[in-house]
Amino acid sequence: MAEPVTVAGGMESVVLNSTDVTHPYYPLSLPLPHYVPNTHSTPALLGYFSLGVIAVLSVSLTLLARRPNLGFWAKSTFMWFIVCGFIHFFFEGYFVYNHETLAGDSFIFGQLWKEYSLSDSRYLSSDTFVLLMELITAVFDGPMAFATAYSIYKGSPFRHPAQLMTSLAQLYGNVLYYSTTLFHGAPHCRPQSYYFWGYFIFLNGFWVVLPVTLGVQSCCALYQAVARVQALDARKKTS
Amino acid sequence: MAEPVTVAGGMESVVLNSTDVTHPYYPLSLPLPHYVPNTHSTPALLGYFSLGVIAVLSVSLTLLARRPNLGFWAKSTFMWFIVCGFIHFFFEGYFVYNHETLAGDSFIFGQLWKEYSLSDSRYLSSDTFVLLMELITAVFDGPMAFATAYSIYKGSPFRHPAQLMTSLAQLYGNVLYYSTTLFHGAPHCRPQSYYFWGYFIFLNGFWVVLPVTLGVQSCCALYQAVARVQALDARKKTS
Repeated sequence: MAEPVTVAGGMESVVLNSTDVTHPYYPLSLPLPHYVPNTHSTPALLGYFSLGVIAVLSVSLTLLARRPNLGFWAKSTFMWFIVCGFIHFFFEGYFVYNHETLAGDSFIFGQLWKEYSLSDSRYLSSDTFVLLMELITAVFDGPMAFATAYSIYKGSPFRHPAQLMTSLAQLYGNVLYYSTTLFHGAPHCRPQSYYFWGYFIFLNGFWVVLPVTLGVQSCCALYQAVARVQALDARKKTS
Repeated sequence: MAEPVTVAGGMESVVLNSTDVTHPYYPLSLPLPHYVPNTHSTPALLGYFSLGVIAVLSVSLTLLARRPNLGFWAKSTFMWFIVCGFIHFFFEGYFVYNHETLAGDSFIFGQLWKEYSLSDSRYLSSDTFVLLMELITAVFDGPMAFATAYSIYKGSPFRHPAQLMTSLAQLYGNVLYYSTTLFHGAPHCRPQSYYFWGYFIFLNGFWVVLPVTLGVQSCCALYQAVARVQALDARKKTS
């Protein structure tokens, strides 16, 4: 019978039997025989992730220096989609490609996923829904985020259709992602509020608030464009 | 131990124990203690469903008689979204509202769901993903389908943004719906090809093929509208 024990870092864990390894993921009875603890600390991992985002933002800002005519909002949206593109395609794509071995992975992306999984162990147990939602995110949302950013950069008419599609796909995936575990009381998250509110709710919350905001913006922009074209055509007909 | 037996209609079923009822759903070991067999035959149920769709299409055609200027494609799209609205909001909404008792439901919608569930028993076992995906379909896709149809009817500039959002939501939900069971070899479907190809693949296939077609149409229409507005503004600046 599995019994909770306390391991390094103050997290209770579980010994499945005398030959199995312990792990800190909920539910504690989750079989993760290939689990290997992280070698980097939590602050170090959060630091590496932040550095990665800052590096991507810096490159984006350098590119934006060539587009002085873009407004503040357009520049911010460009940077958001570049960050999204990198996270969706490379970071979430890494999960999709390595999900079977992720619990024993010590590459920096693997360690980041193991840290995040403290708030959602479905990433280590290859949960079918999470895996397929992430596959869509990596192969559709990722390239679409880059396409949206490129359209903003080039001032392409594809910008708002792309922004609307990318945002809606992000929102749809995230609403399902939240609700499929919240429906059961989030049994895949460690009980500490730091993991639930900090990792699970707050970090993913960006992909609810911003897609809704940007989706509404695109909807309005597209509505106005079509309305102008319709008014133009109506004037042509009557003249 | 559960043993397959043959029941009326030639479908093998399962006796869980001497007091439990039998059912024809896969996997046969699925516990459905509240299951009650349908009172209507398969041809009767397919007939009722077809009659419902025909009734909705007839009302749509009557409404379209007041819009002689709409082309064939716009009229067809209007009818598609009216049918979608009814199916999403009322039929799929019925599942969401009654999912816990559906296996024992003898109302016509309940019997239709029990017939369809021969190709996907997740509808009778309140599968978390299916339930939440259907909730989104009923409360978002359904009203959005009606809003799209209304926009087509009124010639509103909201038509293509609405059509794009509705189609993408339908597509996203359906791709996940297909893949979450196909990933495991479709264990929720009876093995007969009639159920797999006829019900599961073919019926749901409408919500892949048409959303892709209509999504691409809306994308092109919106691209062209924005391109015209951009050209107009560019001319204004230079003049």
